[in-house]
Formats: sequence, C-alpha cells, structure tokens
Amino acid sequence: MDLRIRALLLAAGVVAGCASQPPAPELRGTGDLGVVIARASGKIAVVDTSHRTVLGEVSGLGDLSHASVVFARDGRFAFVFGRDGALTRVDLLARRITHRVQQAGNSIGGAISQDGRIVVAQNYEPGGIRAFDADTLAPLAEVPSTYGAEGKRSKVVGLADLPGNRFAYALFDAGEIWVTDLSDPKTPRTEKYAAGLQPYDGLVTPDGRYYLAGLFGEDGLALLDLWQPEKGVRKVLRDWGRGDEKLPVYKMPHLRGWAMADGYLWLPAIGRHQVWVVDTRSWQQVAQIPVAGQPVFVMARPDGRQIWVNFAFPDNGKVQVIDSLSRSVVKSLEPGRAVLHLEFLPRGGEVWLSARDDNRVSVINTERFDTLASFSIDAPSGIFFTTRAARIGF
Amino acid sequence: MDLRIRALLLAAGVVAGCASQPPAPELRGTGDLGVVIARASGKIAVVDTSHRTVLGEVSGLGDLSHASVVFARDGRFAFVFGRDGALTRVDLLARRITHRVQQAGNSIGGAISQDGRIVVAQNYEPGGIRAFDADTLAPLAEVPSTYGAEGKRSKVVGLADLPGNRFAYALFDAGEIWVTDLSDPKTPRTEKYAAGLQPYDGLVTPDGRYYLAGLFGEDGLALLDLWQPEKGVRKVLRDWGRGDEKLPVYKMPHLRGWAMADGYLWLPAIGRHQVWVVDTRSWQQVAQIPVAGQPVFVMARPDGRQIWVNFAFPDNGKVQVIDSLSRSVVKSLEPGRAVLHLEFLPRGGEVWLSARDDNRVSVINTERFDTLASFSIDAPSGIFFTTRAARIGF
Repeated sequence: MDLRIRALLLAAGVVAGCASQPPAPELRGTGDLGVVIARASGKIAVVDTSHRTVLGEVSGLGDLSHASVVFARDGRFAFVFGRDGALTRVDLLARRITHRVQQAGNSIGGAISQDGRIVVAQNYEPGGIRAFDADTLAPLAEVPSTYGAEGKRSKVVGLADLPGNRFAYALFDAGEIWVTDLSDPKTPRTEKYAAGLQPYDGLVTPDGRYYLAGLFGEDGLALLDLWQPEKGVRKVLRDWGRGDEKLPVYKMPHLRGWAMADGYLWLPAIGRHQVWVVDTRSWQQVAQIPVAGQPVFVMARPDGRQIWVNFAFPDNGKVQVIDSLSRSVVKSLEPGRAVLHLEFLPRGGEVWLSARDDNRVSVINTERFDTLASFSIDAPSGIFFTTRAARIGF
Repeated sequence: MDLRIRALLLAAGVVAGCASQPPAPELRGTGDLGVVIARASGKIAVVDTSHRTVLGEVSGLGDLSHASVVFARDGRFAFVFGRDGALTRVDLLARRITHRVQQAGNSIGGAISQDGRIVVAQNYEPGGIRAFDADTLAPLAEVPSTYGAEGKRSKVVGLADLPGNRFAYALFDAGEIWVTDLSDPKTPRTEKYAAGLQPYDGLVTPDGRYYLAGLFGEDGLALLDLWQPEKGVRKVLRDWGRGDEKLPVYKMPHLRGWAMADGYLWLPAIGRHQVWVVDTRSWQQVAQIPVAGQPVFVMARPDGRQIWVNFAFPDNGKVQVIDSLSRSVVKSLEPGRAVLHLEFLPRGGEVWLSARDDNRVSVINTERFDTLASFSIDAPSGIFFTTRAARIGF
C-alpha cells in the first residue's frame, strides 16, 4: 500500500481495516520474468532475471513432473501443463492462479497459438489435442487422435505452434504427423501425414518451416517441410538412432532441446556420447562431436556461437559447452547434482541451470563461465522465461 | 488507489490529501506494448498490440525526425533517440518521461547492451558514441571517433549491439568499422578495421555474427566476421550499388531494414527497382526480384516466409510482399500515403504500418492481408515493439 496513504490511515486510526488487505501487486514490466518448476512440491517459483531473484511462489499446481510452460503475449500470464492433465493459468504479477482445468488424464505439455488467443494441450490419455481460450480456459475444440479400423486413440507427442494459428504434432501409436489449423477454433481443420514407426517427440525449426519427429520404432527422423507439405514426409539421417549396436539408452533425448545455429542442427545422438551436426540445407550429418555422456538437452546460445549440453545419468552432474565455430568442447562445468534443464536469457549473456538434487538454480555468465547468482528452489526442473512468448515453436 | 482503502479514507474524512494523487498506472504486462513515433509533434504513442489500441501519448520528446527506440529488458522503459541529440527514457506503464539528457548536437540513433544495463548513442556532432546507465541515464563513457593526423571526429552510423556487451559501428568520414567492448563500461576497449569509402549505414545479422556496412563512396559492401575479426573486412557484392549507370537515388535504403530469411539476405538494390537475394554462406547474389519502385525497407516476416518491401517517392504509397520460397511478388498493397515504416508482431501474424501523410497506422493480417484495425496518429513514422528487447542487433 502507498506509504502516504498508510500514514493517513494511521493518522485517521483506521489502518486496522486495511492492514489485512493483501498488498497490491507491484507495478513492473514482465519482459524479464520467468518460471522455475519445483516438481516435488507442485509449486512454481516466479523469478526476475534482471535482478536474479525469486519474487515469490505459486502452489497448488498438482503433479509437475515433466511439466511445461507457455506464456501469454503480454508476459503476465503463464500456462502450466501438468503431467496429471491439469492446465493452470497463473498471474505472474499477482502470483496467483486465475484459472485451472483438469483437461485430461495424462498430458505431456502444450503450446500457444501465434495470436496468443488459443492454448492447446497434447494428451496421452485420452489421446488427442484440446484447445482452450487463453483468457478464460474455456474449452474451444478437441481433435481426438483416432486412427485405424478400431477407432483407437493414439498418444500425442511433439506438439509445436506454427504460423497461422496452426499446430503440428505426432501420433506415437498411429505413426503419423498431424497439422491442425485452429484459425477458426470452433472448426479445426487437420491434415495427416504418414511419419514412420512410433514418433516419440518432435520439434519445429525456429522459423516454423520444418517439423522433425524422432522415431522410436526405427532409425532416422521424419521430416515434413511445412512450406511444401504436399511433398509429404521425408526420412532423413537414417543412421541416427541406436543402429545395429542397440546401445543401452538411459534416457531418450529431448527433441525440443535440439539446437539450430548458423544453419546447422545440433542434436543429441541416441545412446552415444556424441552431439551430431546436421546441415539443414542437405539434411546430411557433417560432424560428430564427442561429449562426456549421453546428451539430453543440446541447446544453442541464442547467438549460435555456443552449444550447451547436459547428460543422462550417471553423467547428469556435468554440463559441456561446444564452440560452434571450432565444433569442439571448450568448457566443462559441474554446476550441481542432476542438472535437468537450462534456459538462456533471450540475448544469450547468461544461462540459468536447475540442479534438482542440490535444490539449487544457478545463473552463469556465458562468456566467462562464472556463477553470477544461485538460490534454493525445492527440486527444480524446467526453467521458462516470458520471452518465449515471442518465439515460434516453443 | 485501492477502492476499499479509498472508502476507508472517505469514511475517515482524510481523502482530500490523496484525491490529488494521480491515478495509479494500470497493472498489466509489457510484452505486448509498443511505441509509434509521431514525428511532427515530438510525441510518441504507446500502443497495445493484443487489443490493437493506443493506450496514450507521451510528449516533449523534441525533434523526432529519424528517431529510433530501444527497450529495457523488462519491457517497461523505452529509450528514445531524437535527431536533435536528446536521449529520453519513457515509462510505458505510467506514460511519462523519467529521465532526459541532451547528449549530443546531432544524433542518428542508438542501441542497448546485451545485459540491458548500458544505453549507447551514436552521434554525428560531435562524432563518436556515448554510453549511459540504463536506469538513470548517468553518463558512463564516451568513445570519440577521432581519426587521421588532424584529430578530426568522424560521423558515426550503423551502431548495433553485439553479444558480450559489445557494439559495432561505422565511421563515415574515417572509412572504418569499430567494435567497442563496454563490458567494463568505465574503460571501453575498441578495435578498429578499415572498411572502405564512406560507410553510410550498417547492420549485424540476427545471430550477431556478421557486421555489414553499405559504402557510399564505392560499390559493394564491407563485411566483418565478428567471430573471426582477425581476418579483417572483406568486400562483397561488388556489383551492389549504383554501378556505372549512376542511377538517380531518391533515398538511400535503410540497411537496418535488410532481411535475413532461411539463410539468405534480402536487400534493397540502390537506385534500381529490385530486391536482391544473397546467399550468406557464399555472399554471392543468387536472385534479383523486380519490385514496384526503389526499395527502402526490405523486412522479413519473423518466420522468413514473406519479405515485405516499401518504397521511396514517388512509389511510397505502395507495399509489396515477396514469397521467399518462389522468390516472386505475391501481393501488392496500398495501405496509405507515404508508408514510412512497418513492424511485425514477433511471431509474424500481423504487421503494423505507418502512413505518414494519411496520419494513420494500420494493422494487417499477414496471411489474408485484410486490415484488422487502423487508428489516427499525427504523422506516424517509426514503429517499435517491446519484444525488440529480446533480439540481437536492434
């Protein structure tokens, strides 16, 4: 409350009545806000990346294992997708839940439309996608992932927003990539493309042009050029995957972690201690870079000069930095136990990392690699900054 | 003021003291705010891109011809660089000026550091750059553009922010490109590179890697690879420019308008009714696209599928849209008289255009090309959205 007013109230002896009022939310910008998932406690921490501080927590978000977050265009509201199928809209300024719906039994994330008006969840159980009004979470549409003669529903993975309020996603059981146009949310229009055996995750390139799905049932990747979808899905990188050796895979890599830098795609080899470099003009592999473990997230610093990699158990305490010009590891870090996720500031000067088993989030300068700040958050996992609202494919 | 508190104050008969307080600024996000320059009246309009409305005006900004704007990381504060050398910090939420300095006699824009803490102005008179604290506009450093035996100062153009709190800019009179590291703002460190005859503007590619300067005194472009600056400046596109024909040039194109899309650079030919397409791997021209006039701004929709072009007099009432896949004009628009600038929403679904001589700003859907909204602003020129704060090279 305004101090002058408070003084007046005290003078008037009427302050008791408002001392119980919650404090008015702080007037501030939202371009430097972010969210850290505290997966064990069903909470999120709201963070300020300018001052590197935790502003507060919001609890009551349910099962946040494998949770993901998208943001409204204004940067004020976060949409949290819980593994338990709950979708929650959080006001980052007031630090409170504004709307919450139990939209499915088992969900694996979501996306927000180009115009910011439609939030879409991708579901395992029941399979399909569901669209909601971004202001109210009122249901707008559902596209059941029905396939085959028996009319089963497929698990949906790899949901990504596209230009034109469209969304691309993969059907694990059906082996298809679907593209749904929600520009008229009441009447979704869906195109379907054969993809291959068991697509398990997917991503769209930062320009929204190429949709790539990793295949669990066969080696290689399914590639759909969304500028020329009539050409259908191409199989690329046939030797990407476990190959004949069938190496043990401790954790399937996160495709959303794939990095585009300087016209090249940097991706985690499956089961191998390697990062692969792929020319996105030819879709041929041009380099294999040895790293300290099985990569999970392979993420480009926004300027593309560095590629940061974290690893599956037992190497999940390590992070390595690849120089994209020399294509070699230039720095190895050990920022904590069980490094689950990292997020760069949008212009790349700093990176935030979550070390789950140390209950710590660290902020590291990406030029000097010194730690600028660190703070305690209960079992932190995903880190998401509001600037994602301005990006395609997040 | 909180209505409950106000009621209490009224009850307590002590409201007079606060009734005179200005109304509290609205609590809202800043990710969907923008600024439109009203050049004739020394005002800026603060706009809301979600609701396509003008929220208010801020006046007293001086000479805003050729004005430019950068934003604080939080999206709340705008820094307006006036042609008269004034630098003004505006609170977009409170719609008021917080700080203003007369930092030079004649200025041509500025930039903000990667960490958002340093605002830098580039000056014609006196030549050089000056650095200011982004919170207070307190002066931090000056780099005079002194060159030659007589110690003259050169005009500075083409200032662009780089990763690592560095800035690149061109010296028109000295024919050099300078890169100044302000990571320790009190002690700037500057590297100098010979560029060619009279660099008149410059830009950095969206990844911050390549700095390009247009040359007024000779044909071609000066290219500096900032990842390998020791290699020095390369001359590329030797046939870019007026060439032997020495065509009349009604307006030099804005280099900052150059578009990067899909690994290609789209740039306005000088004096010719053409847009050129350049492969940024080889720096060779791969196509020339005929357009309706002498291009001024050539801007890629953020997904790179469309390239929008406006034109110099007498064709400045036209706007054309090039499809980057077919490399042909797919749409011609006439959104108003004297279209000076355009700005895309960060994910590309809508574009805002200013038509100076119609005192109108229009918002156009980039898929259907229908006009979604338009409103009156006095002689509008530059349009700048807060999401620029998250981009490199703006």
